[in-house]
Amino acid sequence: MKDYDVLVIGAGTAGLNAYRQAKAQGKTAALIDGGPLGTTCARVGCMPSKLLISAANANHAVKKARMFGIETADPVVNDEAVLKRVRFERDRFVGFVMEGIDNIPEEHLIREYAEFIDDHTVQLSGGRKLSAKTFVLAVGSRPRHVPILDGAEDLVLSSDHIFEIEKIPERVAVFGPGVIGLELGQALSRLGADVRLFGRSGSIGGIRDPEIRDYATKAFAEEFYTDTKATIHSVRKEGGKAIINYDHKEKGRIEESFDFILTASGRVSNTDRLKLENTSIVLSHRKVPAYSNSTMQCGDSHFFIAGDANDEIPLLHEASDEGKIAGKNAATFPKVDPGHRRTQLGIVFSDPEIASIGQSYESFDELVIGRVSFEGQGRSRVMGKNKGLMHLYAEKGDRRLRGAQIFGPSAEHLGHLIAWTVQQGLTVDQILEMPFYHPVIEEGLRTALQDLQKELDQV
Amino acid sequence: MKDYDVLVIGAGTAGLNAYRQAKAQGKTAALIDGGPLGTTCARVGCMPSKLLISAANANHAVKKARMFGIETADPVVNDEAVLKRVRFERDRFVGFVMEGIDNIPEEHLIREYAEFIDDHTVQLSGGRKLSAKTFVLAVGSRPRHVPILDGAEDLVLSSDHIFEIEKIPERVAVFGPGVIGLELGQALSRLGADVRLFGRSGSIGGIRDPEIRDYATKAFAEEFYTDTKATIHSVRKEGGKAIINYDHKEKGRIEESFDFILTASGRVSNTDRLKLENTSIVLSHRKVPAYSNSTMQCGDSHFFIAGDANDEIPLLHEASDEGKIAGKNAATFPKVDPGHRRTQLGIVFSDPEIASIGQSYESFDELVIGRVSFEGQGRSRVMGKNKGLMHLYAEKGDRRLRGAQIFGPSAEHLGHLIAWTVQQGLTVDQILEMPFYHPVIEEGLRTALQDLQKELDQV
Repeated sequence: MKDYDVLVIGAGTAGLNAYRQAKAQGKTAALIDGGPLGTTCARVGCMPSKLLISAANANHAVKKARMFGIETADPVVNDEAVLKRVRFERDRFVGFVMEGIDNIPEEHLIREYAEFIDDHTVQLSGGRKLSAKTFVLAVGSRPRHVPILDGAEDLVLSSDHIFEIEKIPERVAVFGPGVIGLELGQALSRLGADVRLFGRSGSIGGIRDPEIRDYATKAFAEEFYTDTKATIHSVRKEGGKAIINYDHKEKGRIEESFDFILTASGRVSNTDRLKLENTSIVLSHRKVPAYSNSTMQCGDSHFFIAGDANDEIPLLHEASDEGKIAGKNAATFPKVDPGHRRTQLGIVFSDPEIASIGQSYESFDELVIGRVSFEGQGRSRVMGKNKGLMHLYAEKGDRRLRGAQIFGPSAEHLGHLIAWTVQQGLTVDQILEMPFYHPVIEEGLRTALQDLQKELDQV
Repeated sequence: MKDYDVLVIGAGTAGLNAYRQAKAQGKTAALIDGGPLGTTCARVGCMPSKLLISAANANHAVKKARMFGIETADPVVNDEAVLKRVRFERDRFVGFVMEGIDNIPEEHLIREYAEFIDDHTVQLSGGRKLSAKTFVLAVGSRPRHVPILDGAEDLVLSSDHIFEIEKIPERVAVFGPGVIGLELGQALSRLGADVRLFGRSGSIGGIRDPEIRDYATKAFAEEFYTDTKATIHSVRKEGGKAIINYDHKEKGRIEESFDFILTASGRVSNTDRLKLENTSIVLSHRKVPAYSNSTMQCGDSHFFIAGDANDEIPLLHEASDEGKIAGKNAATFPKVDPGHRRTQLGIVFSDPEIASIGQSYESFDELVIGRVSFEGQGRSRVMGKNKGLMHLYAEKGDRRLRGAQIFGPSAEHLGHLIAWTVQQGLTVDQILEMPFYHPVIEEGLRTALQDLQKELDQV
């Protein structure tokens, strides 16, 4: 006799959904979480970053008003007020999450850490042992440790701590031009910080399409120092500052000092803290449990994994779906059903925004591309947002729209529109039968669709 | 032997498309237009209004920056610079339209007005007569004449002339809270004008849903004086000002003076200038030719009508479709085919925006509504745009989404997303299988869909 039918480890977005699904199936279940409650998204992810971005874009909008004939004095960033709103609104969102958590009976929310001692038993940090028929691993992820930054000690902040700063830094270095580094780096820059954004592999914002990646890299570099293939020689702490010795793109090897360093070089799964070696779980080459993306089951075992813990792209809406699928299947195990997965949609809330939809650039056999530039797009120009590119993807010989990459205005909205048509398997011809109002940015999508149509007619 | 196969009267959006389609069918065709070229949309409609709105919203954004912690001095509206950009960019858009017109052989673009003398012959204003096998009436519309405003003479401006003003007025009265009056009234208000917006029927921005109409009316009234059921006693000109004697909502009957009056009480078809009484065309009760919305044919005659001339909602994307259908059918007459029509989509670029999609509120037998308020919607709140309502419509016993009314942030984008699903006949359940990113305004749509799902489950 086990203590529970289902034990869910991790009370974030995925874990909460898994727990609720298991309960909905009439099973006994509990959540185990020794860390801060309130979800990564609400506490240190989506919400506070969007709040900081809103303040940054407000400052940017004031500076930009002159292009419309609106004269303003230079705006003053009131650090205290900016950060106060970010934290106040964030706490409000966390509060909503906590309200949901408060509905969970106290005995079902175990505020301890867990480690496996065998395939059906975990030991809690307090010493107690709990057993269950099945487990959902929803332990989330943490910012990746970057060894070269160790020299700067406490001046290295991750997104876990950036929203607690007292003031906007005068100078900040950002390591990692992925989603988080790009969003926060640009926001800090637009709030007055002198930013250096460093990458290593040449990638930026998760863009896979080389033409769009190059365009975006150039666009960001016009706004703040950006080197996506940086050479960093050393990082140390001196006189309360972080000193970075690096090869500057124009000046050659230099040393510069920074108030702090934001580290954003990806995230790693927390599954390495679960002592999975005491279980029969098979790890993938990425050192996380191998699992099925449709059932969330690890092999054919009684372990299920959901959310950022699985080391796929960390997205709230995916974590939520995965939690539901994992929780339901953990409850009905050994009966396991594939859950509904949605067309891939990734968005970076930079300005311009980045969106990645459906199949990515490198996944096609014979890629056919429909193109549009936002530089001449009517409404984008009206709003002074005429910067960016959009590429639509199809496979040669098949008129269905399969994917897209956008760097441009309203990419979050275009991204939804495109993802919904991709999920339905619509052809470019069918999509062109839909209404496009005037003057809207969606007309840029129409131009790209017409271009794709022409390309498909030729090949 | 007729002079032409197809004569298209009016060289605007509809007429240009009709002409090109007729030519594409291998027919002889010509355009007749004695008025200013460049399309209503580019010259005095969509484009300059969106440009004025962009400046107005830029000014508004500066004032609003404080809520994010960005401190600014009060912005100064540089009238000259604002209006210069509006006209410069407008002229650029008109230039693109003119480039397209310049490709038309000179002898096919007849710069005169036309009146019918019989079913197959028009007399041009220069005296010449031209005959054709078929005709496309694409003569557009003009602002409706409002008799009570006659007393203010030259101080009454319509959208035809508003973009030529030298400075932003200090005080302006707007007659008609439809799309144009609302967009331009709010824009002038946000550029510093003291605005009075007067309506008569209680309607605003074309909103058919009473709950949303009331909400929107209140929201606009908080920003500038709005009375959608105004009683105007008299309008006269005195000392270079327009004097309006009216019942003020709080102050009772008063007189106020205005720099000018913007008249925006709808538009009327220019077909009354064609001497259609000399033809066999049958007029509808609205005094425009009765016609088929799918073929654009007037009765079973050799006359076709397209664009604003038909007195339906004046929308560029509809005019463009109608022109193509009319031109093609005029060319192939007596063979006439129904053309592809799109799901209705109307957008007002006010702030918040208004969108009307698909079937409207009053067209249902047993209406089921799914609701969301943007006041508590996460991302809307992050951006300080948490104002508005969205209603989704279904018919009892049928889970397909049929229509929607939105007053809220990003309604132009939500409008496309919804219109595209309505056109495909998707059910609320199918739509909920699509990806919704986080945190986005589209999550508000999800909330409304879930509410609609619940309502449909109950009835």
